[in-house]
Amino acid sequence: MPTPVDFYYDFSSPYGYFASTRIDAIAAKHGRTVNWHPILLGAVFKVTGGAPLPSLPLKGDYARVDIARCARAFGLPFNFPPKFPIPTQVAARMNVWAQGLDAERAKTLARALYRAYFAENRDITDPEVCADVAAACDFDRAKAVVAINDQAVKDKLRLEVDGAIARNVFGSLYVLIDGEPFWGADRLDHVERWLATGGW
Amino acid sequence: MPTPVDFYYDFSSPYGYFASTRIDAIAAKHGRTVNWHPILLGAVFKVTGGAPLPSLPLKGDYARVDIARCARAFGLPFNFPPKFPIPTQVAARMNVWAQGLDAERAKTLARALYRAYFAENRDITDPEVCADVAAACDFDRAKAVVAINDQAVKDKLRLEVDGAIARNVFGSLYVLIDGEPFWGADRLDHVERWLATGGW
Repeated sequence: MPTPVDFYYDFSSPYGYFASTRIDAIAAKHGRTVNWHPILLGAVFKVTGGAPLPSLPLKGDYARVDIARCARAFGLPFNFPPKFPIPTQVAARMNVWAQGLDAERAKTLARALYRAYFAENRDITDPEVCADVAAACDFDRAKAVVAINDQAVKDKLRLEVDGAIARNVFGSLYVLIDGEPFWGADRLDHVERWLATGGW
Repeated sequence: MPTPVDFYYDFSSPYGYFASTRIDAIAAKHGRTVNWHPILLGAVFKVTGGAPLPSLPLKGDYARVDIARCARAFGLPFNFPPKFPIPTQVAARMNVWAQGLDAERAKTLARALYRAYFAENRDITDPEVCADVAAACDFDRAKAVVAINDQAVKDKLRLEVDGAIARNVFGSLYVLIDGEPFWGADRLDHVERWLATGGW
């Protein structure tokens, strides 16, 4: 059995949104499954000294152009969120909780949370909004609300973040294939080629 | 006549090296020419607060992997230079001087300087090395050596750098098509698609 591909993403990352719509299909084409790892880029940046794109002079302005252009290139609905970036603990915890129940449906939830934030102008820092999204993905709404403050869920997310840092993940999205790292939606072509060829 | 594509690059940028081998062919396919602009990323970073890749925690290590992998993906000869990044005034001045004589042959020189640094382990901070490369591209070797300290050449390079900063160029490589910015070798597919479609 080939090892699963690891996919790291933060819910405030537009490039993570774009990749979330493709990564499973790309992997499946080459007989691989994907393990999804929601992370908190804010916690990662504390360790790595990284900074969110909009805070960077010039690069932040460019990113706005590039992100919108990428969305159109991917053919995905996109509206630049009025609040960007955002803290993503609530969305990530809901995702982690859902993974404990049904890994595949948790992916559907992750994509729906991304769409809510980046296409539907919804505030996914709000537990009620995230619970609505979870309910629409056939998760129990009441349990979803409770899960956000569940210590076990918080601990599991912390483990994900620590695991990402331990594996040198410094951005979103980040993909690991048999230890080979790929950063950014613009590397999905390399991801695909790596899976097809076994590396070059 | 469609306006030329603008291509900005620093001689210490591996992604600039990769793109320098493709950009003219990509543009020509769509009836465009390319204006080449050697810049000094060090001067740009002073204004933008940017930093060279190797100095960034984790990202620097990743960049080493990504750069070598990109070189193989582009099918280009590549040896990671022992000194990286380097000051590129000498190479850029030689390039600017050559542009005043023959724009097309100056592109051949730029590609040869990149190859010298990134494939042949030659020290392009050394005026004598740059003069050798210029001579191999049919420029007058003695005049090339003199040009490096020519005030007019220095001024012309400064104008290029100031022009780049004025146009918000913050990295290498950077491409402008009718005002639309593209940053990075991983955006050459977007550059090509933009030229083919007129934008999306």
